[in-house]
Amino acid sequence: MVQMEEVIIGKASLAPDRYFSPDAAQKAVALELYQSVAGLPLVCPHGHVDPRLFADPEYTFGSPTELFLIPDHYIFRMLYSQGVPLEALGIPRQDSRATETDHRQAWQLFAKHFHLFRGTPTGIWLREELAQLFGVTEKLDGGNAQAIYDQIAAGLQSPEFKPRRLYERFNVEVLCTTDAATDRLAHHQAIRDSGWPGRILPTFRPDAVVNLDTEGWRDHVLALGEVSGIEVTDYRSFIHALEQRRAFFKDMGAKATDHAARSAYTSELSPSEAARLFQRALKGQAGDEDAFRFTGHMLLEMARMSVEDGLVMQLHVGAYRNHNEAIFHRFGRDMGADIPVQAEFTHNLRPLLNKYGNDTRLALILFNLDETTYGRELAPLAGHYPAVKLGPPWWFFDSLNGIRRFFDEVMETAGLYNTAGFNDDTRAFPSIPARHDLWRRAGADWLAGLVVRGVVDMAGGREMARALAYDLAKAAYRL
Amino acid sequence: MVQMEEVIIGKASLAPDRYFSPDAAQKAVALELYQSVAGLPLVCPHGHVDPRLFADPEYTFGSPTELFLIPDHYIFRMLYSQGVPLEALGIPRQDSRATETDHRQAWQLFAKHFHLFRGTPTGIWLREELAQLFGVTEKLDGGNAQAIYDQIAAGLQSPEFKPRRLYERFNVEVLCTTDAATDRLAHHQAIRDSGWPGRILPTFRPDAVVNLDTEGWRDHVLALGEVSGIEVTDYRSFIHALEQRRAFFKDMGAKATDHAARSAYTSELSPSEAARLFQRALKGQAGDEDAFRFTGHMLLEMARMSVEDGLVMQLHVGAYRNHNEAIFHRFGRDMGADIPVQAEFTHNLRPLLNKYGNDTRLALILFNLDETTYGRELAPLAGHYPAVKLGPPWWFFDSLNGIRRFFDEVMETAGLYNTAGFNDDTRAFPSIPARHDLWRRAGADWLAGLVVRGVVDMAGGREMARALAYDLAKAAYRL
Amino acid sequence: MVQMEEVIIGKASLAPDRYFSPDAAQKAVALELYQSVAGLPLVCPHGHVDPRLFADPEYTFGSPTELFLIPDHYIFRMLYSQGVPLEALGIPRQDSRATETDHRQAWQLFAKHFHLFRGTPTGIWLREELAQLFGVTEKLDGGNAQAIYDQIAAGLQSPEFKPRRLYERFNVEVLCTTDAATDRLAHHQAIRDSGWPGRILPTFRPDAVVNLDTEGWRDHVLALGEVSGIEVTDYRSFIHALEQRRAFFKDMGAKATDHAARSAYTSELSPSEAARLFQRALKGQAGDEDAFRFTGHMLLEMARMSVEDGLVMQLHVGAYRNHNEAIFHRFGRDMGADIPVQAEFTHNLRPLLNKYGNDTRLALILFNLDETTYGRELAPLAGHYPAVKLGPPWWFFDSLNGIRRFFDEVMETAGLYNTAGFNDDTRAFPSIPARHDLWRRAGADWLAGLVVRGVVDMAGGREMARALAYDLAKAAYRL
Repeated sequence: MVQMEEVIIGKASLAPDRYFSPDAAQKAVALELYQSVAGLPLVCPHGHVDPRLFADPEYTFGSPTELFLIPDHYIFRMLYSQGVPLEALGIPRQDSRATETDHRQAWQLFAKHFHLFRGTPTGIWLREELAQLFGVTEKLDGGNAQAIYDQIAAGLQSPEFKPRRLYERFNVEVLCTTDAATDRLAHHQAIRDSGWPGRILPTFRPDAVVNLDTEGWRDHVLALGEVSGIEVTDYRSFIHALEQRRAFFKDMGAKATDHAARSAYTSELSPSEAARLFQRALKGQAGDEDAFRFTGHMLLEMARMSVEDGLVMQLHVGAYRNHNEAIFHRFGRDMGADIPVQAEFTHNLRPLLNKYGNDTRLALILFNLDETTYGRELAPLAGHYPAVKLGPPWWFFDSLNGIRRFFDEVMETAGLYNTAGFNDDTRAFPSIPARHDLWRRAGADWLAGLVVRGVVDMAGGREMARALAYDLAKAAYRL
Repeated sequence: MVQMEEVIIGKASLAPDRYFSPDAAQKAVALELYQSVAGLPLVCPHGHVDPRLFADPEYTFGSPTELFLIPDHYIFRMLYSQGVPLEALGIPRQDSRATETDHRQAWQLFAKHFHLFRGTPTGIWLREELAQLFGVTEKLDGGNAQAIYDQIAAGLQSPEFKPRRLYERFNVEVLCTTDAATDRLAHHQAIRDSGWPGRILPTFRPDAVVNLDTEGWRDHVLALGEVSGIEVTDYRSFIHALEQRRAFFKDMGAKATDHAARSAYTSELSPSEAARLFQRALKGQAGDEDAFRFTGHMLLEMARMSVEDGLVMQLHVGAYRNHNEAIFHRFGRDMGADIPVQAEFTHNLRPLLNKYGNDTRLALILFNLDETTYGRELAPLAGHYPAVKLGPPWWFFDSLNGIRRFFDEVMETAGLYNTAGFNDDTRAFPSIPARHDLWRRAGADWLAGLVVRGVVDMAGGREMARALAYDLAKAAYRL
Repeated sequence: MVQMEEVIIGKASLAPDRYFSPDAAQKAVALELYQSVAGLPLVCPHGHVDPRLFADPEYTFGSPTELFLIPDHYIFRMLYSQGVPLEALGIPRQDSRATETDHRQAWQLFAKHFHLFRGTPTGIWLREELAQLFGVTEKLDGGNAQAIYDQIAAGLQSPEFKPRRLYERFNVEVLCTTDAATDRLAHHQAIRDSGWPGRILPTFRPDAVVNLDTEGWRDHVLALGEVSGIEVTDYRSFIHALEQRRAFFKDMGAKATDHAARSAYTSELSPSEAARLFQRALKGQAGDEDAFRFTGHMLLEMARMSVEDGLVMQLHVGAYRNHNEAIFHRFGRDMGADIPVQAEFTHNLRPLLNKYGNDTRLALILFNLDETTYGRELAPLAGHYPAVKLGPPWWFFDSLNGIRRFFDEVMETAGLYNTAGFNDDTRAFPSIPARHDLWRRAGADWLAGLVVRGVVDMAGGREMARALAYDLAKAAYRL
């Protein structure tokens, strides 16, 4: 059986200077900077890990296919794009029609297409996980698929693979989940009650009740009334219920809220207009334009509440969700069919920033899928407004090139200290070390580039590397 | 006289490691990868070479000015931008007013301004062509202009410069032309009839009959009726005529269609609405909005036909054609006055992709002049929809930096295998080897960067280099 | 006291090969190219230095805080973004409420936050200025703040720090200021009258009278009537008054005009429509749309006048000025709260270019804060229209990365010779050498990259380096 201790601490076959620029001088500096931060604890202020993993001390990840393939739309979308049906990969259908149930078969198909991930961040993370967690150093392919399946399956049996144990071995300092406004946070309560010292914190995400066009919005509002104990009959009680939930989340350790919108549009409605829109929605009569305006208004309300209760406000902008109707109907949400759209912040955020942007009690962290806004809008906004910080490159851009472009386009104008460090933003708990490690390596390489060009000196570089790896995230999220 | 054999196979003075990154380690890997693909046949699935070149075994290119300058808007636009009148370069006017007829004079002017091409792809291609095809290794300037003119003119006399002979010496495997829907493909027929084994295939381009705002649209539709033998009196007969032409092109060896539009807008019209718009156009009453909507509808129709007949569908989006009215009136189309505009794919292509994007019988290859869509829209679309592939960087971006940015922004998300390899997209047949060579070098350098950073290993790099240089284009175009 | 001669000529502790790429081969070439242009005179065709500096031979810069901090929104915006109130930095309020008056206190706060500028262009310029002008080679921080304050204050006492003396020691060849259309150019006249041989030229900037939505527009128009001696009662007299002022500026040595607009929209109004809009504005009834259309029309008028009088036309597009209302009300304009917006040139400039773009008497130099237009619109426009040249990367993008991206995205399509060299665009006269030096170094490094890749040879590289550093700016501005 695999020597877990060894592989987890990185004794596998991967080169110690991987992902750095090839220039020898830069590489040496990058390695030195990287080594100075490689051992720092992992701060995970935003992500989508299921708190159940830690609530249940006996939680197990299932088969290799259940661990790596079925829950990861980064992976199966790539096979789907090459004509592999999702059913053949074991992805469950909504209509419960047949899907592959033999996990070895699905794994075989995945392994056969592993070359598709060449040069992709998913390919890097997978290789890192396979090597670091399971001691798999061969490249996966159709020939070795079953042997590697066996190797992973054996590893997964080990008590070392319980999530709580991994949390400790990964050296995670804190991990924030993302939870619906209507969530009673039972898993978080169970974690607290268990006495286990891991720090798993909830994050307040009210999208389903705030965005009027959410499927089943009225049911979500009903649920909001139930969990808050405040019957939601109008805009006013809606706001009270949200405030109640924020207070509850805060009691449960939450440090932040999270908001997703296709656009960054913000604009304050008059109280009567907000009330009218809300009533229309309750009657099932709200249109697209109503939903758009109400979301824009609620972002201002959420900023107001953040000023008052101190919860950090995250805003994720720019995904056209469920672009592929057929896939959505057959398989549901989060199936690799979310496609970015253009974003705009300068006009859209102005109402919010003019009202709250100068208030240092607000911390607004911006995420975005349109890189053109990095240098043009986001960096100048973060480089001026005290309330604004920039989140790390998101989703498709959490990659070696994506991170490099982010540094390149943001840092000169925003300055390092108006960014919010890293967050892994992942459902895949076992991939967390690989993601942080890639960020730390990319950061070290960027800084090494500044050092060898004489832009910053080594002492400055060290402080910046530590900030990127650890300090900025803690400060930005008030952890 | 020049030793053609020698120069064509690249014994000229150009450095073997040109265009690679300067880092010694990366350069060595790049050279190795490049050499592994440098000798592969050229696959040319999209371009604008006139089939007459191959239909007429005695075709000659004329004077050096006729070969290099007069037909190449990449070149004369640059001189024009610096105040050189197009008339002085021998470009024929539409109104047949005077233009320079002394080709040596025009060449002299070109040579005098040759420094304008420093650092441009045109400058690179010209240098490569002059060296590889004519043994000209001096930099062109006002002083040596006439001597070099003589040297080129002598070369052009050689039987080695017949297009069929060049095709063979360039090691072209297949070359696709671009042909109007109304073209009878007489030259293609002549090539077939001649028994010459070169593979010259037509491509079906119906823009002139599909885009209602084409100048002389009704004449084109009339011609469509004539060549198809289907009188086009309404939308229904129009569709039948198009289907007939597609079948004819396919019989003649076509593998693909090509469609140009300023925007990627697609939206299905009801049959009655389509019929109504078409009637309006027949009466000469279609407005801009009608043309826009009809094109958007016809893209869906073309996708439907591709699903049925298997022709690969190419879509080129984003040029504002004939931006300069004065130049258009005096000299006509393709005079270097086409300027890109912003593009949008996420919303615009959704109707088409929701209808046909999950169908593996469709292959939709996208081209575009707005690089901001690479990472934001195109790569995520190609990385999800089975039908979508990304064409190589187009036009202004078929350049060392343009290719590098394309790799940088597309590959991590789309994956290499959702791209369509290279196509030279040129009218200038003699420039084809230089264009492919630049692509192969740029690809090798990009891959070397991945290898030296430890992202892919050398075995993977070799396969990827071959895919970029050869396999992907053949697969994407079903050649 | 500091040995000024020594530090100004660059004997300070900064590495001679700073800011170059780390590759040894490229760095050697970069250094050689840089050294070939480092000593060339500084051509400053566009900027915001106050002509008073040169009109008054006894002008002094005040305290270190008055020199570096109070006038420089690049600096104080960064501290503000981190929660430091502008009042604490000594920035004067419009309402004359209390602000820090102890310059040493403000300096201490600045020094304490100096690490915020790590990796920013401001950080580079400051370090260069401190080292080159004041011999300060320690990094500024809270500990050495007062000692460095003393060192700078002592330097500022020296006669070497009179602006005229600095002009000579900086080796400035010509410096253009930016002056309102209503300015009587008294300082410029005083400079002329003084017999001092420095070349300080005015630039005609009519924004305040051309943009109907300028605060106090009618007062500006009144002033225009007064200085021109042409009573402005209607559109016709307005145009005459502008023509009169242009002639006056030209007499006073002006070579150029400058125009700022949020968008590049141009569209010609009929004379009656222009007259009607102008009347509406005189009555205080012009709305946002009126102002937008009138500006778009006046850009065409300004191009017409440039064709006639030969003044180079500069157009700066894309800033949302005074984005932060609270800051604007408290502190006024230019407080670091200008945020870029998306720009569009292909459609917007077409009316102007179709009317004047083929006329070589017009020189239109374009500036822009939306880098996405570099390769997509600006480079193709400059690479076609004889009248169009591209200004250097502006504002936030006048930085190491910004310059590199500009070269990368513009040069292949536009060609070097359709760009306008460098301009420092600064209010901060003492920072001018550092800004030009950074440009020259960045240019040398870019060219070295072309040389080591075999794209251009060393002879070409030298000519290009000289063009970037000196020739292009002189030619573009007809100096």
